[in-house]
Amino acid sequence: MPNKKIFIGVIGAGTCSDEVRRLAGEVGEGIAKAGAVLVCGGMGGVMEAACKGAKKQNGTTVGILPGTDKDQANPYVDFPIVTGLGEGRNLLVVRNSDAIIALPGEFGTLSEIAFSLRLGKPVVGLSTWEVSDRIVQVKTPEEAVKIVLNQAKTLRSRS
Amino acid sequence: MPNKKIFIGVIGAGTCSDEVRRLAGEVGEGIAKAGAVLVCGGMGGVMEAACKGAKKQNGTTVGILPGTDKDQANPYVDFPIVTGLGEGRNLLVVRNSDAIIALPGEFGTLSEIAFSLRLGKPVVGLSTWEVSDRIVQVKTPEEAVKIVLNQAKTLRSRS
Amino acid sequence: MPNKKIFIGVIGAGTCSDEVRRLAGEVGEGIAKAGAVLVCGGMGGVMEAACKGAKKQNGTTVGILPGTDKDQANPYVDFPIVTGLGEGRNLLVVRNSDAIIALPGEFGTLSEIAFSLRLGKPVVGLSTWEVSDRIVQVKTPEEAVKIVLNQAKTLRSRS
Amino acid sequence: MPNKKIFIGVIGAGTCSDEVRRLAGEVGEGIAKAGAVLVCGGMGGVMEAACKGAKKQNGTTVGILPGTDKDQANPYVDFPIVTGLGEGRNLLVVRNSDAIIALPGEFGTLSEIAFSLRLGKPVVGLSTWEVSDRIVQVKTPEEAVKIVLNQAKTLRSRS
Repeated sequence: MPNKKIFIGVIGAGTCSDEVRRLAGEVGEGIAKAGAVLVCGGMGGVMEAACKGAKKQNGTTVGILPGTDKDQANPYVDFPIVTGLGEGRNLLVVRNSDAIIALPGEFGTLSEIAFSLRLGKPVVGLSTWEVSDRIVQVKTPEEAVKIVLNQAKTLRSRS
Repeated sequence: MPNKKIFIGVIGAGTCSDEVRRLAGEVGEGIAKAGAVLVCGGMGGVMEAACKGAKKQNGTTVGILPGTDKDQANPYVDFPIVTGLGEGRNLLVVRNSDAIIALPGEFGTLSEIAFSLRLGKPVVGLSTWEVSDRIVQVKTPEEAVKIVLNQAKTLRSRS
Repeated sequence: MPNKKIFIGVIGAGTCSDEVRRLAGEVGEGIAKAGAVLVCGGMGGVMEAACKGAKKQNGTTVGILPGTDKDQANPYVDFPIVTGLGEGRNLLVVRNSDAIIALPGEFGTLSEIAFSLRLGKPVVGLSTWEVSDRIVQVKTPEEAVKIVLNQAKTLRSRS
Repeated sequence: MPNKKIFIGVIGAGTCSDEVRRLAGEVGEGIAKAGAVLVCGGMGGVMEAACKGAKKQNGTTVGILPGTDKDQANPYVDFPIVTGLGEGRNLLVVRNSDAIIALPGEFGTLSEIAFSLRLGKPVVGLSTWEVSDRIVQVKTPEEAVKIVLNQAKTLRSRS
């Protein structure tokens, strides 16, 4: 059934170092290889690197944008969804994800982690905010992808 | 560029007659055959019939849902986008469409037509609300699809 | 109980003629004299004239704004509520109103009328869109206020 | 000018201990005595205690609610604003506050702190999340109110 695809959220800063970009790219590749859809905020930095990684593996990417202009999306977003909600789109990124991988980010990322925990969504952290022991902190993109997919599948099988 | 796909919105009632279902199905088929993405509110009636038509032609469908549960989506939605905005998702359906085909519907449909006109989006009407002469009223699904695609492409080429 | 105040929505164009301004002012005065809170979109035209009328009678006014800057509000708004939702704030104007008086307006006003009818809120029309016989069309501000208050009170007593 | 009132946000858990309730009550009293409007999420716990404190001092309280029913508001909310945005109303609480006092809370509170910092709003913390040194951590309600009002006034004088 088409609706049954797993959606994995990738959150993190809109601008980032080359090292974080590399991590995000590998996360994106891993999500795509597993056949899951990558959801993100559609902009630059972590979001762009993750989408680029996913497209390298022929994955599918959804970018939920703060503004009303699709051209805001990074070029690796297949389905740009405009919202016009500004920062409010952060909640929609979370709501549209079965589980989330959090990379380094600032307060926008922290708001997304907070919403994920508030809504009971699994969060895997890769060098990110340590605000709850419910975030599974990992060391590598491979671990992040493996754990997040397990969590998402477990949740799906229960519902 | 992936973001450059044309998104055509299809709006109309959540429950409808067999005749309207047939019209919506043909609209969906036409959008898919033209290679455009079909956007709708993701629920039943006109929305479901249009998505079903699009999938018959191997098209791609996006359903922007009022609630927070993807399982609300009709089975022909490829990408269910949950919002938790209730009726507020109607505005997101419009914002995500380059141009809109309006079929018979009630006040939810009217709100979408109003937002389309407010935001300057082209609207083609097929047996729907006649609240403005800016709505191009047509008689057949074929005409609706042909005109809406021309309008969407014209807008894209200008921007 | 403080929450039990009646909230009457006033909707209409952001720019308007002197004649419409006069009607809106009298509507605002009537709402204030009845002790109800006036809710509107907080901007100019009909909204400003209605708020000005309400303040003339020492009423209370709430303006639900599209942007994130309170200074967008007209000077007669006591409680500017910013949303950052753009046109999406139209739905919040309706949701916050027990009943609505619609004056002349364009497609933004039409979206609010459509949402009101969708949500089952009473609407009284004064020279406005005639899209449903559920809108009680009246000729004067006095009639509009009298009927809308009756409708709002009837609904309240039932709930 | 009516729009120039200062709005102070009070955020914290929807259920809380008697001790936190006492702190929130004193915060509410202090805001009211200073003539500022208290904004909050309108529900129980910290929000209710703060509103109750404000009303004890004849202050004014605005509650921005997640749902669409004003009766959700605690009885000390003068102006219940319904949103139907669910957790998305957290962002509206922040957007409507010139500055914020954060009390103990869980992930909803954390999302509000994150948005405040993201949007550059001053935050004073009273036994709350310590996620940034931009949060001014204080020991008493008196200090919290004094500092938050100074911050809000400084911002206003600049704009």
